[in-house]
Amino acid sequence: MTQAQARPAGVRPSTETLERRGSITTDRDGGPGPLDGPEAAVILERARATVDPELRAAVESLPASLRRITRYHFGWEHADGTPAAGNAGKAIRPALVLTAAAAIGGPRARAAAVRAAVAVELVHNFTLLHDDVMDRDATRRHRATAWTVFGDADAILAGDALQALALRLLAEDPHPASAAAGARLADCVVELCAGQQADTALEKRGPGEVGLDEVLTMAEAKTGALLGCACALGALYAGAADEDVVALDAFGREAGLAFQLIDDVIGIWGDPGHTGKPAGADLAARKKSLPVVAALTSGDPAAAELAALYEVPYDEEDLQRTALAVERAGGRDWAQAQAAERMARAMQELARAVPEPEEAGGLLALAEFVTRRSN
Amino acid sequence: MTQAQARPAGVRPSTETLERRGSITTDRDGGPGPLDGPEAAVILERARATVDPELRAAVESLPASLRRITRYHFGWEHADGTPAAGNAGKAIRPALVLTAAAAIGGPRARAAAVRAAVAVELVHNFTLLHDDVMDRDATRRHRATAWTVFGDADAILAGDALQALALRLLAEDPHPASAAAGARLADCVVELCAGQQADTALEKRGPGEVGLDEVLTMAEAKTGALLGCACALGALYAGAADEDVVALDAFGREAGLAFQLIDDVIGIWGDPGHTGKPAGADLAARKKSLPVVAALTSGDPAAAELAALYEVPYDEEDLQRTALAVERAGGRDWAQAQAAERMARAMQELARAVPEPEEAGGLLALAEFVTRRSN
Repeated sequence: MTQAQARPAGVRPSTETLERRGSITTDRDGGPGPLDGPEAAVILERARATVDPELRAAVESLPASLRRITRYHFGWEHADGTPAAGNAGKAIRPALVLTAAAAIGGPRARAAAVRAAVAVELVHNFTLLHDDVMDRDATRRHRATAWTVFGDADAILAGDALQALALRLLAEDPHPASAAAGARLADCVVELCAGQQADTALEKRGPGEVGLDEVLTMAEAKTGALLGCACALGALYAGAADEDVVALDAFGREAGLAFQLIDDVIGIWGDPGHTGKPAGADLAARKKSLPVVAALTSGDPAAAELAALYEVPYDEEDLQRTALAVERAGGRDWAQAQAAERMARAMQELARAVPEPEEAGGLLALAEFVTRRSN
Repeated sequence: MTQAQARPAGVRPSTETLERRGSITTDRDGGPGPLDGPEAAVILERARATVDPELRAAVESLPASLRRITRYHFGWEHADGTPAAGNAGKAIRPALVLTAAAAIGGPRARAAAVRAAVAVELVHNFTLLHDDVMDRDATRRHRATAWTVFGDADAILAGDALQALALRLLAEDPHPASAAAGARLADCVVELCAGQQADTALEKRGPGEVGLDEVLTMAEAKTGALLGCACALGALYAGAADEDVVALDAFGREAGLAFQLIDDVIGIWGDPGHTGKPAGADLAARKKSLPVVAALTSGDPAAAELAALYEVPYDEEDLQRTALAVERAGGRDWAQAQAAERMARAMQELARAVPEPEEAGGLLALAEFVTRRSN
């Protein structure tokens, strides 16, 4: 249990690593991979440009004390309040909102969905502020996290205010889809909370006490839910039929889970040239990531060896042995097959809602960017 | 500074003491005062009965992990998940929603406003869960606080989920006022966060560094805002004119501030027979309550003595001297005069929105109950 409690900062993947990959718009840290393509970069850059003015206006509406914490969190200000160049993350979720709206309803729907895109980005950042407090993560987007600078109370309160701001934006929006979008986003917040709760609870349990299904459910709640919700909100704002809203939600969820699986593989075996995450980081932290739990629950003889290694604190010499045990127990193959299956399901859902390849192209490019398939 | 950082648990007044006064419906702890009258007790009991089924249904919709924490927080379950008799607080805020709706629109408006009443109660409890984490308060409603039982992460996440649940209830409500109510409630959450932020920040500053205006603003944000919002939501659901919504918001805010002023007086000089709060508790905690800051900023010679006492940690022998210094510097008189002035303003606002005394009677009774005028 000790190693789980003493889990070092910055090793939890999911939402964080979607952020950590440098900013396409400000630097080329790692550069785009073979399938990230210029198209995803252009979509993300355009989304950031569309969303930023409304996002900043929403933050400006906060009382000064909360605005200061929020501006720092978004990278717009240094801790002392002076302006910063800013790295507010890649805007993947707002890009999904806008691109889903455009895929179904064209440029007019994209323009109408800007508030929904801002609301999703606010919710995402509210969860980052709170997750960092709970996980004691000291770094985000290459900067000190808000709680390390302002204290726990300020970070919690800024997060609370961002959730309120997100749902207020939708409550105030006269668009006919705004109420349904607000209800859906609020539901998603509940699922995100359940996912984070499951994650913190799982990390406290022993390696033999965790089932694969519950880790998959946790990953879907923590990572898939908001990506799915972003797509669903775009569809709602484009006036999509109910079944298309559901299909686009499923598309985002499956792509999100594919991302998580691949990120977990990278967290063990590394990803040459793509992320700053060193190979083995998740193993060193004794993280019960998807490939690890798949290996632990495989019934293979290597599973017992892995469980024994996970019972004791991290030892650098055991790192290769641990990675090998995960691999021998089938964790790597399972994760890669699962990721491929999830992406195939995502494509099916996308084709169902947006059958015209030309219209689906933007969402496809974003899904490929998010999963950054290095296999 | 040390005494501020080491502030004992359970001394912050405002929202907490509105809860702490025993439950009218479950026991007679302290008994109703001369002006609490049977009417307020009846209104509160009826509000609890109206709101509880919807409140429980909302909580039941949460995923199991978050439901457990929430049920415990509401006093419906013990920490081990077995049913508890329950003391979910006095339902003052939902009673204000329902009573304001009834005052303007009669029984039909009261019935239509139930979801809004539940939403306000959920928001109130979300702030309690988070405030207890930030303030390290170990006890609420005579029970161990959620964070002491489940840990910080679970308490933060349950609070996050309750905010989402509150705003979802309004987003899903087909009532024509629901969107305006949702926007108003979300705005109120931002103000509550700013109030709590100001409170935690003020307590870290020295006794000479706090202005009376900022403490009044903090108290209005922390205590007045949600009472005002509750009344405004009731008015909105009754289809009130804009100026009546504004007047009822002001009524709730002013009554809330009157409550806070009187509660602060009780925190220094005690309230024979009414609360369990011992005389001097706020002074012992070096709390910068309203009478204390009024005294510190009075310019009276006793202010300097008070400041000197507040600069050093609490000493039991100094307690009487400290209380006397606040009194001599005019803190007690100022607080009582301010409370009376705030109540008078509340009555004016009420008369503006609800001129018929018979229709205004319920809100009047609640305001008197809340302020429990023992002077």
